[in-house]
Amino acid sequence: MEFWETVEPKYKDIVLKYLINKDERILYQGQKLSRKLIEHHIAPEEIISLHKSIMMEESASADQILDSFDVLLEVMMAYGIAYREHQSLRTQQK
Amino acid sequence: MEFWETVEPKYKDIVLKYLINKDERILYQGQKLSRKLIEHHIAPEEIISLHKSIMMEESASADQILDSFDVLLEVMMAYGIAYREHQSLRTQQK
Repeated sequence: MEFWETVEPKYKDIVLKYLINKDERILYQGQKLSRKLIEHHIAPEEIISLHKSIMMEESASADQILDSFDVLLEVMMAYGIAYREHQSLRTQQK
Repeated sequence: MEFWETVEPKYKDIVLKYLINKDERILYQGQKLSRKLIEHHIAPEEIISLHKSIMMEESASADQILDSFDVLLEVMMAYGIAYREHQSLRTQQK
C-alpha cells in the first residue's frame, strides 16, 4: 500500500476527532503524523489539498473549518522546522 | 517597517480579491508574494495562522473559506518547492 493511501484516513481521523473534542493530545497525533509526512517527502500543498477535500466531504460549517485550522497549523509547524533546517544548511554552505 | 507588517495587508488583499473574483492572475500575485515570504524566512505556519485570522475577521462563510484554500495552496506550493530543494541538498551531502 502506498504511504499516501495510509495518510488520507489517518489525517482525516485526526481532523474529525479534533472537531469533536478539541484536545491537545489529538494535536500531538497530528505532530507525530507530520514527521512521517516529511520523512515520506509529502509536499505541504498536498496536505492543504487533502484538508480542503475533507472539509468539503464533511460539509463542515465555517466554525468547524476555522477550528480545523489548528490541525493544519500543527502539521505546517513541522514543515516550518524542516524549512528552517534548510536555511541553516544553506547558510553553513555559504 | 517590519517585513511582516507589510505581508499582512498584502496577503489579506490577495485573499479578499480572490474571493470576489476567482481569477488565476490573483493566484499569481499569491505566488509572487510567497517567494518574498520565503526570502524573509516567514514560516509556513505563520501564513496558516494569518489565513485563519483573516477568515475570522471577515466572518467568511464555509464556501468562502473553502474557496480561499486556493490561495493557501498556491503559497504552500512555494514552500513545497523550497522544501524539495532542502531534500535534494541533503541527498547531495550524503
